[in-house]
Amino acid sequence: MKKIGLLGCGVMGTQIALAIDSGKIPGILTHVYDDSKEASSELVSKLNNKPEIVENSHLLSSHSVNIVVEAASQNAVRDDGLSILQNKRDFMIMSVGALLDESIYDILYDACDHFKKTIYLPSGAIAGLDGLKSIKGELESVSITTTKHPRSLKGAQFFETSEINLDSIDSSTVIFEGNARDAVSLFPANVNVAALVSLSGIGSDKTSVKIIADPDTDKNTHHIEAVGKSGKMIFTIENTPDPENPKTSRLAILSAIETLRQYCSDDIQIGT
Amino acid sequence: MKKIGLLGCGVMGTQIALAIDSGKIPGILTHVYDDSKEASSELVSKLNNKPEIVENSHLLSSHSVNIVVEAASQNAVRDDGLSILQNKRDFMIMSVGALLDESIYDILYDACDHFKKTIYLPSGAIAGLDGLKSIKGELESVSITTTKHPRSLKGAQFFETSEINLDSIDSSTVIFEGNARDAVSLFPANVNVAALVSLSGIGSDKTSVKIIADPDTDKNTHHIEAVGKSGKMIFTIENTPDPENPKTSRLAILSAIETLRQYCSDDIQIGT
Repeated sequence: MKKIGLLGCGVMGTQIALAIDSGKIPGILTHVYDDSKEASSELVSKLNNKPEIVENSHLLSSHSVNIVVEAASQNAVRDDGLSILQNKRDFMIMSVGALLDESIYDILYDACDHFKKTIYLPSGAIAGLDGLKSIKGELESVSITTTKHPRSLKGAQFFETSEINLDSIDSSTVIFEGNARDAVSLFPANVNVAALVSLSGIGSDKTSVKIIADPDTDKNTHHIEAVGKSGKMIFTIENTPDPENPKTSRLAILSAIETLRQYCSDDIQIGT
Repeated sequence: MKKIGLLGCGVMGTQIALAIDSGKIPGILTHVYDDSKEASSELVSKLNNKPEIVENSHLLSSHSVNIVVEAASQNAVRDDGLSILQNKRDFMIMSVGALLDESIYDILYDACDHFKKTIYLPSGAIAGLDGLKSIKGELESVSITTTKHPRSLKGAQFFETSEINLDSIDSSTVIFEGNARDAVSLFPANVNVAALVSLSGIGSDKTSVKIIADPDTDKNTHHIEAVGKSGKMIFTIENTPDPENPKTSRLAILSAIETLRQYCSDDIQIGT
């Protein structure tokens, strides 16, 4: 059985740990870490098979785990990614936005090759990345349109310099149109989705992003259109926000669990 | 570098072999087999790095390859699948329809677990399987609608007992509505797509299939709708048939190449 180290014991980390503990993911959670000791203790208290809480994040990969799963923050990817690969562990990243920094991407990409290890990025709150990466070499355009209720967009840095008042929006309104590189800094809540589409396809400068505030929706919807030499792909993913964790899409949790389940399984793996 | 054995030297096998030979897939094609000696010789003549042509399909996995890639037929999966896994080789399957036979599926699934090997199924001519398998446990319904020009449907077994005359269709017409289990026997050209959707999701009995003949289209379009507890996914994949190989979708070739590239690479693997 594969041994797993978990970096980050928040909502996402807890769901992953519970999936391992229940046997849904056929691996063993041996070590966990969170900057908050309280969070790691609370997580461990919920599990039947108790992992060890390590003293700092670097110690996770010094133990003989097969993979470290990051469910913490972009900073954790930046600070710990290289040493995880140097310690010859595979690495699963939830805070994919960290990889839009090209220097981080290049360092980790080269380290995978050098240390013969693999980084896994789950599909997050979207789907269709199997198709995008297959036609990556012949893509002409990729766009992603995200539609949310105005309250779900509140707090985004974009509104610090914009004249748009979210409270006064009474019909579906385009808030932002630009490329993925600009979108991720202005709408941090969208960063992982925009990063995944950019990395699978034609990069963050060429990927178009549109953000729509719609007071009549209770869903978060991502609509992706990709046009290439061999045809066209259109993906619409409509997520019902989880009432207990409205900021974390349930699909993002489920896709992380499925990615780790596949990593831990010898079976029939469906999809590119 | 990973060593690859290729079972089947037709259109699909040739494209995969050329992708290995060009370095796009960072592996080595060491052995090939096709029931037609002419086909295997013709393939080898196109390659700079010449693989060995083996005398029968079973010999492929007796050599020290890491993976055998099937690009032959459902019969090849049935006849050779188990011995490939018993010989401790991974196995990539293009003729996914073979797995709709539950006895074959169960034998190969158990063999993966027993011999600690993995079967890989590329996403074929569709996309979005990352999403489907992530929400597999909470799916309520899955449907796939395939729209093609009437000439692309010719020869299907369905028409042997149907009164529909493809030549007289002058507007978009629903030809078939049923489940995936029935669809695959009546429309063999659709078998891999229906099998992939069924295996990723809720099985071939519960997966709805609709086939539409549309004289006004020059595309093959697959439209997948999946509804689950966490929301809804809609995928539309519009393939332009390759003029040189109208029966093999270019996306099916590209997704096979991408799946094998990932298998052979230590790098950043995007998507569930």
